This record gives sequence, C-alpha cells and structure tokens, in this order.
Amino acid sequence: MEPSSLPASRLLPERLARQMNFLIEIDKVKTILRQNRIISDPERRENDAEHMYHFAMMAMVLAEYANEPIDLLRVLKMILVHDIVEIDAGDAFIYDPQALVGKRDREERAADRIFGLLPDDQECEVRELWEEFEAEETPEARFAASIDRLQPLMCNYHTAGGAWREHGITRSKVFERNSKIARGSTELWTHISRVLEDAATQGYMAPDKAQAGSESFS
Amino acid sequence: MEPSSLPASRLLPERLARQMNFLIEIDKVKTILRQNRIISDPERRENDAEHMYHFAMMAMVLAEYANEPIDLLRVLKMILVHDIVEIDAGDAFIYDPQALVGKRDREERAADRIFGLLPDDQECEVRELWEEFEAEETPEARFAASIDRLQPLMCNYHTAGGAWREHGITRSKVFERNSKIARGSTELWTHISRVLEDAATQGYMAPDKAQAGSESFS
Repeated sequence: MEPSSLPASRLLPERLARQMNFLIEIDKVKTILRQNRIISDPERRENDAEHMYHFAMMAMVLAEYANEPIDLLRVLKMILVHDIVEIDAGDAFIYDPQALVGKRDREERAADRIFGLLPDDQECEVRELWEEFEAEETPEARFAASIDRLQPLMCNYHTAGGAWREHGITRSKVFERNSKIARGSTELWTHISRVLEDAATQGYMAPDKAQAGSESFS
Repeated sequence: MEPSSLPASRLLPERLARQMNFLIEIDKVKTILRQNRIISDPERRENDAEHMYHFAMMAMVLAEYANEPIDLLRVLKMILVHDIVEIDAGDAFIYDPQALVGKRDREERAADRIFGLLPDDQECEVRELWEEFEAEETPEARFAASIDRLQPLMCNYHTAGGAWREHGITRSKVFERNSKIARGSTELWTHISRVLEDAATQGYMAPDKAQAGSESFS
C-alpha cells in the first residue's frame, strides 16, 4: 500500500502524517515469525514485536552486567528498531547459512523503504540506530547483541530445546553462536554457558557426532 | 509454577536467578489478549507484548509532541512495564465498566507477586515506574497515558472500527475516553480528534442515538 493511500494521512499535517504512516507500517512486525517458540505458549512461534518487547525488558533488567558503561536509552532505541527491516527482508535463522545469503542487501533495501517513510531527520536517526546495532562496535551495540542472543536462548531452553531441537542444531554450533554473548557481558556468558551445558545434557541440542543427514542445517 | 522450580535457577547465582525468573514470567504478556485487532492481521486480537512494543515505538517517534519536556528513557521504561500486571489481573477493556470493578486491587496483588520475583532494588524501581504510570501525575506519565490511548485508537481506525464496532461503542464514549490524549499532548489531540470525526463519519462507532439494547457497553 502506498503511504499516501492511508486513510488518515489526508487529515494530518505532513510531518505527523509521515510519522503515523511509519507507525502503521511497523505494525507488520507483529506478523513476522521467528524460529523460536513462546515459553508460555510453545505451540506458537514468536513474532518480531514479541521478541523486541522481551529483548527490551531483558536489556533493562540485565543492564548491570554490561562489560562497559552503556547509555540505556540508546540501547532501548536500538532494540526497538533493530528488526523492523524484517518486514521486507524476513527473519533469517542464524543457524541457516542459506538464509544469510544476500541478507545485508535485502535489509538495506528494507531500511531505505521503511525508514524512508519518516520525516528526514527521524529517518536519519533510526537509520543510524540500526546501522550501529548491526556494526556491533559501540558498547551499547555490543551489549544489545549479547541480549539478542540470550533472548531466544532463554526461549529455546524453556521450550525443551525449541528451535535447536526442531532443526537438529548441534551442541558446538549453539555454543559457537552464543559465545558471542561474552563480547557484551563476560559475566552473563560465564553463567549462561552453564545453562547451555545443562541444555546439552538434557538432549535439547543434537550431539556433535550426529550424522550430517540428521541435521537440517549443518 | 514456583520460581524455584524453574530449571535454570539452580545453575545461576541468586540475583541473576531472580532476574531470569522475572524475565521468564513476563513471557506471559505474549498470551494476554486485548480487545483491539492488529492492523496487518485483523483476524487476530493484539496481545500485551505487541501493544507495549508498538506503544514504545509510538512514544519514541512522537515524543516531540509532548506538552512538557520529558525524560524519554523514563517514558520507555514505564511503557515496557505498564501492562505486566495483566498477566494475573487480565486486560480490562476501558469501555466495559464491569471489567473496571476491583481492577486496582487485582493489579496491586499482581504487582506484589510478579515484581516481587525481582531482586529488592529492582522490584522497587519497577513498582515505582508502574505506580507513576498509573497515577498520571508526572509529565512522563501524562505523555505515556496519551500514547496508550492513541495506540489502540490507531489500530481501531485502521481495522474499520475494530473493537469500537464489535462492542457497539458510541461516538461520545470514544471521544470522552480519547480526549484524555490532550493531557499529554494538546497538539496530537487537535489532529487526532479530526481522525476520530472521520471514523465516526465512516460508521466505525455506534451513533449516540442508538438504542441502548444495541450496545454491549453503554
């Protein structure tokens, strides 16, 4: 749908119309499904709005564990913005190498279109937040990246393996991907790696010596 | 489920175990359904996680319209916390007087239980954020209250009336409830009241002279 065709636009001043068009567009994150399941309703896969909400609350509660001092407002803004590009680009499961091919290009185009709905100054701000999150070079982005791993890890652990088990992800892959938590918080990784050991013991991941044929993504 | 029975708790130091138990408990906001529908999937009612996500993004994008200077970090924290009590207390449709009976008591008990999962210092902080939101006496809480009205209004408008039409809410009720937007932002209310006039013209609300029998909540 063209932004200009939204029924409320003609009733609003231009700046507010652009802001509202963006806010209506991002409603679609509620329909973008991720691989992990919901702890309290494991029949259902989590959507991006639910993920970003949970992720933001986790960052707020766990901020004290960041390796470096962080500006929590900037962290929360990055989190709220980080998956909006998936409206066009889709969710790429991090254990699926095929899904990662061309991801950056698809997301750049999505950012152009969706952030471009905003007034220019806000488009710039949101684009910068997203680029900062993606680059993982500032203390805020490194901490956010850690929690972005921890949130689905928590969902998978509390749904008896969830997406790990469904896709036959091996122990070493899970450890490799999640060890990145240490870049934002060595303290959290110290503790969470024990939870992952427990998950492996419970059979929530495929053993490393599983035959390649039994894994969806090897 | 008792917090102590959560499988990861025994693997974590006490403070982190309490934080994680809280973060797992609040996963349940993803299962608390509201009355309004989702713009991009009107077959489905919105849940509290989706509402809080969308509400937080609206506050971030529309902050410039607040009547008074606001601390956006505090606004975002209040928003992320404000509906957690509904895990126990349920969502009360603001147009249903019956649902509002005993609401405060139910929510106080929910706050005791759920916020009480956190370490004491964080329980205090989250409780204060929730009390501040509820009291609507600070500039931050007044602005948040405005956007808390605007978010479902936007969903109802863009789903051809949504919850207003399903429950036969009259024009005057909709205007009465939403005129509170002006307390946090007179500028937004000036513009949004025109959108509501348009919604009334389109038949998205019940006319005021409708017979009482045709309304679910009069």
